[in-house]
Amino acid sequence: MDTKFLFLAMPEKLFAYNDLFEFTKSVFIRIGCSEADAAISALVLLSADLRGVDSHGVARLSGYVRLWEAKRANTSPILKIIHETPSTAVVDGDGGLGLVVAPYSMQIAIDKAKNVGTGWVSVQNSNHFGIAGYHAMMALEHDMIGIAMTNASPLVAPTYSIERLLGTNPICVVIPGGEEPPFVADLATTTAANGKLEILQRKNKTAPDGWIQDKYGNPSNNPHELKSGGALLPLGGDREHGSHKGYALGAVVDIFSAILSGANYGPWVPPFPAYVPMPEQMPGKGIGHFFGAMRIDAFRPAADFKSNMDNWIRRFRSAKTVEGEEQVLIPGDPEREMESDRRLNGIPLLHSVADDLEFLARKLEMQFI
Amino acid sequence: MDTKFLFLAMPEKLFAYNDLFEFTKSVFIRIGCSEADAAISALVLLSADLRGVDSHGVARLSGYVRLWEAKRANTSPILKIIHETPSTAVVDGDGGLGLVVAPYSMQIAIDKAKNVGTGWVSVQNSNHFGIAGYHAMMALEHDMIGIAMTNASPLVAPTYSIERLLGTNPICVVIPGGEEPPFVADLATTTAANGKLEILQRKNKTAPDGWIQDKYGNPSNNPHELKSGGALLPLGGDREHGSHKGYALGAVVDIFSAILSGANYGPWVPPFPAYVPMPEQMPGKGIGHFFGAMRIDAFRPAADFKSNMDNWIRRFRSAKTVEGEEQVLIPGDPEREMESDRRLNGIPLLHSVADDLEFLARKLEMQFI
Repeated sequence: MDTKFLFLAMPEKLFAYNDLFEFTKSVFIRIGCSEADAAISALVLLSADLRGVDSHGVARLSGYVRLWEAKRANTSPILKIIHETPSTAVVDGDGGLGLVVAPYSMQIAIDKAKNVGTGWVSVQNSNHFGIAGYHAMMALEHDMIGIAMTNASPLVAPTYSIERLLGTNPICVVIPGGEEPPFVADLATTTAANGKLEILQRKNKTAPDGWIQDKYGNPSNNPHELKSGGALLPLGGDREHGSHKGYALGAVVDIFSAILSGANYGPWVPPFPAYVPMPEQMPGKGIGHFFGAMRIDAFRPAADFKSNMDNWIRRFRSAKTVEGEEQVLIPGDPEREMESDRRLNGIPLLHSVADDLEFLARKLEMQFI
Repeated sequence: MDTKFLFLAMPEKLFAYNDLFEFTKSVFIRIGCSEADAAISALVLLSADLRGVDSHGVARLSGYVRLWEAKRANTSPILKIIHETPSTAVVDGDGGLGLVVAPYSMQIAIDKAKNVGTGWVSVQNSNHFGIAGYHAMMALEHDMIGIAMTNASPLVAPTYSIERLLGTNPICVVIPGGEEPPFVADLATTTAANGKLEILQRKNKTAPDGWIQDKYGNPSNNPHELKSGGALLPLGGDREHGSHKGYALGAVVDIFSAILSGANYGPWVPPFPAYVPMPEQMPGKGIGHFFGAMRIDAFRPAADFKSNMDNWIRRFRSAKTVEGEEQVLIPGDPEREMESDRRLNGIPLLHSVADDLEFLARKLEMQFI
């Protein structure tokens, strides 16, 4: 790993993509994954680091290992469809890593779309699936629109609630362009994702209004508030600014992912950190996901669609901007630029993350990079 | 109409549902709709008044008539499927009223779901379809999840833009309960719907932060700002509060509704007010909608799903609230209560709306209520 010591002044170390990929894959093999499952898990995890979603990348690797140690993740699951129609399926993830269960399930959605125009798969008995974007983007090479969502452990208080009943429940919608790169919207249904709070905590900064509330439901700017009973707020922030809409969207993700499949929902979704006790009286199995694939030419010739999409993208990108802003962005633009840069120049990891990986390697008696 | 003069002190007149329905239906017949099309149009329009979405009800009746007068709406359209697969269809609305085109298209989605589990219909060449909720709720009696969205004329500036490129583009998702009433989320992808601004204008009040910007993209509290080049803001309000997410959601609605179908999109969506000139160089036909239906038992036995849904609804409804708030609401609660009340006690219309309907009756040489 040559670039590792190039930027000693930075709070981060740079790693080459391939080095991190091989290490990550080895870790998954070490905890019992097959070669193929380890490869896909590493691919999914690293796609987050490449795209700049650092909270969902290798920073979570030791978390997945701890889930396995706590026997909360099955590294040799038998994945199967437990119910299906021509356009739908429910997958039982057998307690497997979401990093494996999700691409398997998205592939079923794609196959069904090939046959009948669209495919929709709800998943039970899974675990954290990394970034939604990876799975939804599997649709692109088939000229399909891809959709991915997942529920997650409860950190979010619905409008008027002081209880945390929903996860940050992301929605990802990916739409192919023609000459233009694809439209990739991948968004937590909260004002700010939990990863953003973690950044503020590390930098010792306060959070903007509308991101969090304290345990009584009062507005708070303390990024540590969740540790003392506070909650993240749904997109919108408060009722006057449409938090009931963010709450409704997060609820839809929860219901599609878990009530359609028979997974746990609402406050009963299992936590990612293995040290957090499991909820009592869980009504379902594991966590839930939902995937969709729609073949473009099930609606219109793909060439016509793409030519319109290019026109859409160019019109939006060339819109007049507020003074001081360079360009109106198309969803997916920042992540794509980040990926180009990081593939070429390496992935910067915080020292704490790099140290954590090194510690993990020692614990598993493996060679670090 | 007995209750008309009961509340002289109110700024509104009360009308019985049946009286308004019959009048509205007669107006649609008068402008050339068939008996069946007039009935469904009145049903859709009045469903907005019943549910308290006053901006989308009979207040718009004279607007639909003006569209017809301007030859922008065809009251005897020949609706047809122009492309389909087992789970998808594209409908050509033939320039018809969205109030007619939308239920026709939603029915196709439902029929496809009966056959292959889900149905997805994108619509071109339509007009304003009233409230999304009516169409999505058609799925409920079939034990299906219903989805409805539509694009609309551009009033919304994407994040960093000073140009208005998107409509308030609503998303509606309707999910059946068991013993509990259904979950009905029906939301504009903006901080506040345009109807909310109209209320502030009438009451001579200012708008909260985060709803609108002026023509330079500066925050504004002036509810008349749209008349001088300002714009509504996407859900989130500004970048720090997630406006890029509201923008992305509004964009998805635009693309599913119009680029999948071949309708007009983005800044080219035709305006509802007939006096506003049509955009130049329109890339598609009319406005676009998108509908979905998913059969619950294409995933899981409906009874299991509904029992989980009831549990979900009860848990959320009984959550501890912020002090001063009575209850955490389930999406659809306020509208359902409003509907019970208005069916029984009548629909209150502002004097200006009632006068407008009376003027319309005279113009069309019809008897008002």
